[in-house]
Amino acid sequence: MALNKDKRAIVLLSGGLDSTTTLAIAKAEGFEVYALTLNYGQKHDVELHMAKQSAGLIGVKKHLFIDIDLGSIGGSALTTDLEVPKNTLEVEKQSTIPITYVPARNTIFLSLALAWAEVMEAEDIFIGVNAVDYSGYPDCRPEYIRSFEAMADLATKASVEGRMKYRIHAPLIDMSKADIIRKGVELGVDHSLTWSCYDPHIVNMVRVPCMKCDSCLLREKGFKEAGKEDPVLKN
Amino acid sequence: MALNKDKRAIVLLSGGLDSTTTLAIAKAEGFEVYALTLNYGQKHDVELHMAKQSAGLIGVKKHLFIDIDLGSIGGSALTTDLEVPKNTLEVEKQSTIPITYVPARNTIFLSLALAWAEVMEAEDIFIGVNAVDYSGYPDCRPEYIRSFEAMADLATKASVEGRMKYRIHAPLIDMSKADIIRKGVELGVDHSLTWSCYDPHIVNMVRVPCMKCDSCLLREKGFKEAGKEDPVLKN
Repeated sequence: MALNKDKRAIVLLSGGLDSTTTLAIAKAEGFEVYALTLNYGQKHDVELHMAKQSAGLIGVKKHLFIDIDLGSIGGSALTTDLEVPKNTLEVEKQSTIPITYVPARNTIFLSLALAWAEVMEAEDIFIGVNAVDYSGYPDCRPEYIRSFEAMADLATKASVEGRMKYRIHAPLIDMSKADIIRKGVELGVDHSLTWSCYDPHIVNMVRVPCMKCDSCLLREKGFKEAGKEDPVLKN
Repeated sequence: MALNKDKRAIVLLSGGLDSTTTLAIAKAEGFEVYALTLNYGQKHDVELHMAKQSAGLIGVKKHLFIDIDLGSIGGSALTTDLEVPKNTLEVEKQSTIPITYVPARNTIFLSLALAWAEVMEAEDIFIGVNAVDYSGYPDCRPEYIRSFEAMADLATKASVEGRMKYRIHAPLIDMSKADIIRKGVELGVDHSLTWSCYDPHIVNMVRVPCMKCDSCLLREKGFKEAGKEDPVLKN
């Protein structure tokens, strides 16, 4: 812990369960945290409000929001009028990666995090990717993360001049969703301020999760396995 | 040439001399071209208008503009109120890479190009980086480009599923500025529609290059060596 005292880290914070837990982990490891949230045209932009509240509660030095319209690039059910698939939790039974995949999203997000890391003189970048209870997205796998890290060291002025060596931390990568929830409880994450549903609808002026998309089903399974109630469902 | 007939390529087009020549090269190689231009908060946004005109003249299938405010990340004289250095052409005499460097810019741009490439089913991405007459930017070097290419193949659904293998083309990387200008002349590039100056000022309602920044000096040297007049200076 003491090792990271006064060291800066960039944390990619979407406002979801995984990235919020990742933020809490970076804080618990002693980093001074700079949270980066991307408003990329996601249907579930309710997560942005939760990101803001969680960043405040967990405590970040700075929280930067950047707008980038990935809907103009298209190709994903999260950013276009393509329908979000329902009841397809069992990824291993799917023939392909689902269309909730956003083309090159983590590469775009990590690139922006890298730019800010260079400016803030932070060598550590945290991302909440997970390769256990996940939708099979290619840019959530360990080999992808290692490859981005290698590229990053050739990409910036600070790394090429030998002043910085970037580390991409993916502390959740081998954890089950239940483990992530337990870890969040341990670190005091307020799960009522985390949003997972890809396709929320509005009932009586309240944003309600669909409980049918991959992300809802993975979350539900996680809370069940962890023996916890999901506070988002109490509202 | 015929090999690439009906094959699609994404070309990163800033509106500068290099990227416009790169666009003409991609066309000459037979690709169906999708031009991508980023409005990232650059002081020299006059280049965006030139990009639009050049794309029309050279002929692209589609031209996508994406806004992303890299000024909010900071760290560069191109996007903030830091002053653009003047009369520092001789990069080899500089102790460090100049502050016109934009943190992780090419990584951010290539990531967005990769996303669009996946959606458009284009395996080929063109970028006008150059490592001869340049400002020493790390993300213009061949080893960086190769590393991004390796990462890209692990990053997307289409590559992981084996449907696409990305190639990052940097056809100018070993060319002198004079060679790039000669190549443009050969391919019919209208150099009056290319913009290089990082720090333009306005004289009698006309945008005028400063003739002192790195980019102006490299361009001037290039036209001189190529034995051509720069049409931008005739205006």
